[in-house]
Amino acid sequence: MSHEMRRKDRELAGPEARMLLERGEYGILSTCGADGQPYGIPLNYCLLNDAIYFHCAVVGHKLDNITANNRVSFCVVGETEVLPEQFATRYESVVVSGKASEVFDGEKQLALEGLLAKYSAPFRTKGLNYINAKGERTRVFRIALDAIHGKARR
Amino acid sequence: MSHEMRRKDRELAGPEARMLLERGEYGILSTCGADGQPYGIPLNYCLLNDAIYFHCAVVGHKLDNITANNRVSFCVVGETEVLPEQFATRYESVVVSGKASEVFDGEKQLALEGLLAKYSAPFRTKGLNYINAKGERTRVFRIALDAIHGKARR
Repeated sequence: MSHEMRRKDRELAGPEARMLLERGEYGILSTCGADGQPYGIPLNYCLLNDAIYFHCAVVGHKLDNITANNRVSFCVVGETEVLPEQFATRYESVVVSGKASEVFDGEKQLALEGLLAKYSAPFRTKGLNYINAKGERTRVFRIALDAIHGKARR
Repeated sequence: MSHEMRRKDRELAGPEARMLLERGEYGILSTCGADGQPYGIPLNYCLLNDAIYFHCAVVGHKLDNITANNRVSFCVVGETEVLPEQFATRYESVVVSGKASEVFDGEKQLALEGLLAKYSAPFRTKGLNYINAKGERTRVFRIALDAIHGKARR
C-alpha cells in the first residue's frame, strides 16, 4: 500500500531528506514479527551507494523478524525543538521503507568500512583490524532506498 | 512471541527504563500495515497512569495501520555518544510493546492536558482554549505499558 503524505506543506525535498539521512547519528529500525508485533530499535548505520547498511549480532529479535518478514522501515530524526506557545514542535525527519537483505563478502566488508569511516574515522587502521578479528561474529544488512519521505516543520 | 533480551548485561532496571520514558522528548511509534509493511515515525507523547498517550490528526498512515493491526512498538532514545576508538556508542533506550487503542471524552481530555503539561506548561490557559477549539480535529490513543525493556551501554 502506498500512502500519500497527508501534509504536503511539510514534505522535505528529496535532496534534503537524503542529507538528513547522510548525517543522522542513528536511526530507528522498525520490523514486524511473524505474529504481527512491530518492533522498533535504534541502530547505527551508514549510507553507501543508495542503500542503508547496518550491522548486528549473529542472532536476535530483529533478525528473527527480518527472517519472517524482510520489510522494514527506517526513521532518522534531525533537530527538534519544542515550541511551547504554539503547542507544536519544530522537527525534521526522514522515513525510508524497503526490504532488508543480508550481505556477504566484499559488500559486507565495504559496509563495515563505511561504518568505520562514519563513526571512527581517526581510528581506521585499528578499525580494519577490529573488522578482521570480529567480522565473523557480525552480520550486515542492506536496505535499498526504495522510498524516502522527508518531513519537517520549521 | 516473547523475546529474551540477548545482552542481559545491558538491561536497564525497570525504574530507570520508566524514568527514560518519563523524560523523553519524543518517541518513535512503529506500526505495521495490513500488507506487512512496518512504519516508524516520531511522535510527541506523555505518560499518564501507566500508559503512553499520543495525539494525531483524524486520518493518516499510522491510523490506517493501527486500524488493521493495533499492536505497536514505541521507542525512546536518551543520551547517545559515539565512542570512536571503541567502535561503539554509549546510549540508553527503552522499547515498549503493547496495543494502541483510541480514547474518548474524559480520558481524551486528560491525555491532551497531559501533553499540555509536558510540552507547554507555561501556557496552560491558552492551551486549554486550544484543546477546546481543536480537540475535535484530533484523535488520541493510549498504549498500555504491557512490556517495557530498557537497554543501555554506559
